[in-house]
Amino acid sequence: MRATVFHGPRDMRVDHVPDAALSASTDALVRVTHACVCGSDLWPYRGELLIYGPPGGRTGHEFIGIVEAVGADVQTIRPGDAVVAPFAFSDGTCEFCNEGLHTSCLNGGYWGGQRDGGQGEAVRVPMADGTLVALPPDVDLGDDDLAARIAPLTDVVCTGHHAARSAGVSEGATVVVVGDGAVGLCGVLAAHRLGAERIIIMGRHENRLAVARGFGATDEVHERGPAAVARVHELTGGGAPHVLECVGTAAALDTAIAVARPGGTVGQVGVPSEAVDLMDAYNRNIALTGGVAPARAYLQELVEAVLAGSFDPSPVLDLVVPLADIAEGYAAMDERRAIKALVKVASA
Amino acid sequence: MRATVFHGPRDMRVDHVPDAALSASTDALVRVTHACVCGSDLWPYRGELLIYGPPGGRTGHEFIGIVEAVGADVQTIRPGDAVVAPFAFSDGTCEFCNEGLHTSCLNGGYWGGQRDGGQGEAVRVPMADGTLVALPPDVDLGDDDLAARIAPLTDVVCTGHHAARSAGVSEGATVVVVGDGAVGLCGVLAAHRLGAERIIIMGRHENRLAVARGFGATDEVHERGPAAVARVHELTGGGAPHVLECVGTAAALDTAIAVARPGGTVGQVGVPSEAVDLMDAYNRNIALTGGVAPARAYLQELVEAVLAGSFDPSPVLDLVVPLADIAEGYAAMDERRAIKALVKVASA
Repeated sequence: MRATVFHGPRDMRVDHVPDAALSASTDALVRVTHACVCGSDLWPYRGELLIYGPPGGRTGHEFIGIVEAVGADVQTIRPGDAVVAPFAFSDGTCEFCNEGLHTSCLNGGYWGGQRDGGQGEAVRVPMADGTLVALPPDVDLGDDDLAARIAPLTDVVCTGHHAARSAGVSEGATVVVVGDGAVGLCGVLAAHRLGAERIIIMGRHENRLAVARGFGATDEVHERGPAAVARVHELTGGGAPHVLECVGTAAALDTAIAVARPGGTVGQVGVPSEAVDLMDAYNRNIALTGGVAPARAYLQELVEAVLAGSFDPSPVLDLVVPLADIAEGYAAMDERRAIKALVKVASA
Repeated sequence: MRATVFHGPRDMRVDHVPDAALSASTDALVRVTHACVCGSDLWPYRGELLIYGPPGGRTGHEFIGIVEAVGADVQTIRPGDAVVAPFAFSDGTCEFCNEGLHTSCLNGGYWGGQRDGGQGEAVRVPMADGTLVALPPDVDLGDDDLAARIAPLTDVVCTGHHAARSAGVSEGATVVVVGDGAVGLCGVLAAHRLGAERIIIMGRHENRLAVARGFGATDEVHERGPAAVARVHELTGGGAPHVLECVGTAAALDTAIAVARPGGTVGQVGVPSEAVDLMDAYNRNIALTGGVAPARAYLQELVEAVLAGSFDPSPVLDLVVPLADIAEGYAAMDERRAIKALVKVASA
């Protein structure tokens, strides 16, 4: 089959690799119809954090598709099912899965590297019952528009939701979102769904801010650095009780802490790629919550909401490329020509 | 009057300074009977973080004493009252004081530096009604044993309590305390008061561990580094849901995060003096809460508990020095010959 392989910085290639195949009796084999390129995929692309291991590793952790086969012990997933995979697999039965923290599953793990990645024609899915969410029979992933509404659920929608939940966003809340990438935009969407009254997005790219407005942002802060912090304090009368940190750099976390009201909470879902100074958080009792999102915990609810038409995350996907051209998806995101790329892998 | 002045690293001197005096109509003038040396006082002593400003600043933020005079607008505090001061002053009326976050008081501040410090004969106390807690008339601060039970309430008892509260400790909890200094020991005490069933202290000093046992510690981890983390994981079956970080170094915070169970909470009250790597916290959704303790929020309740005999924090004070010999208190703590020094300033 064909799958994307990390050959080195700025060198993502679609190679011929051994076909994905069932291995354990709890596996499912999923033929991928659509994948996405994640902001975190840009790290290995840029030679920074090698999340798929050394060159040779498979890439991609966001995919949806059709089940082709299942092992003998798979109970709830059947061949022919259209399915959504969260960006981590999990058994669904351990103490952490039972607590809704599927990314700490005792038997779980992540796609790519030595395993099949999402940016390929097929994926062996371990613990299929615990991992996959089956879509209703009438969902046709041959409909690219529908696929574009569902594909962001694999990661960014759940991650934005986790940021908002971790930051304690509820009805009537005032929320600041740091970052206007796909996750930040999904943070806006999540805060809006959870009933926030005021949602301030910090960002400078007009195309992204337009998406944010569509997702429910009420205010925009275009400034940078201390001026941006001052502007948020002015808008909020001294900082917001709920802040979503959706970038991961030390500068972004510093900003997230600085715009929080004393006693406030930062829901942090940007991967913390740099060491951070916690003195301001300490002095003002700002809590840092969040982490890698337990997407599987939220997936069923969010899939149902999308299928019911209650929200549409597809505007974060502003570029579609066929699998053969996935390198262009990476390049466009790297150069900020696109927010996020949908990769069309196969017809359903 | 005489007061301790920071002259430079390892040079704390008791100097003659201008007498403390009422200034605003909301002030009280307090004659100090007892002060303490805080672990954070060792930072300027060691030339690290100059919490009292440049040389010339007054020192000390932990004191109890007798009110000598009050301004015209002071309502609840009267001359002759025995009082406890928290380590920060606050108006008691702003939005943050009303929320119990007195260390973020809009009009508040800290002792020492250009203000009177606690390690002197008298202190001008701003916003006396909001700041001070008056003791019942029968409390005699001339009783040094009683004073030693009350003096730790000014900071370390409230700080340990804040760590435990921030970490979500409740009835039946399993708790790890990182740090066997006075704050860590008070964290053990607080966890015990809040009903924790299992309290694991990480430390190596037998005299401190003996105090911890007296305060309710059920387990001790003497190892350091990765072996210590492994031992906690062994004792707890994979980490504790509640961790109290009572040191402030990057190594201590790393340890606190590492011994937490996925989804757990670290109540951080050690001043974060170094930048920290949050990747482990992110990967396992460990929340970092806490900060500078709003001592005033807890003080009334904890004073009443001490006076009722329900707990006794005085074992953290294992050295008593007269004000004239305060330098010896600093030296003994710096050299770990003492956990914490009580400074006897004047007879009540």
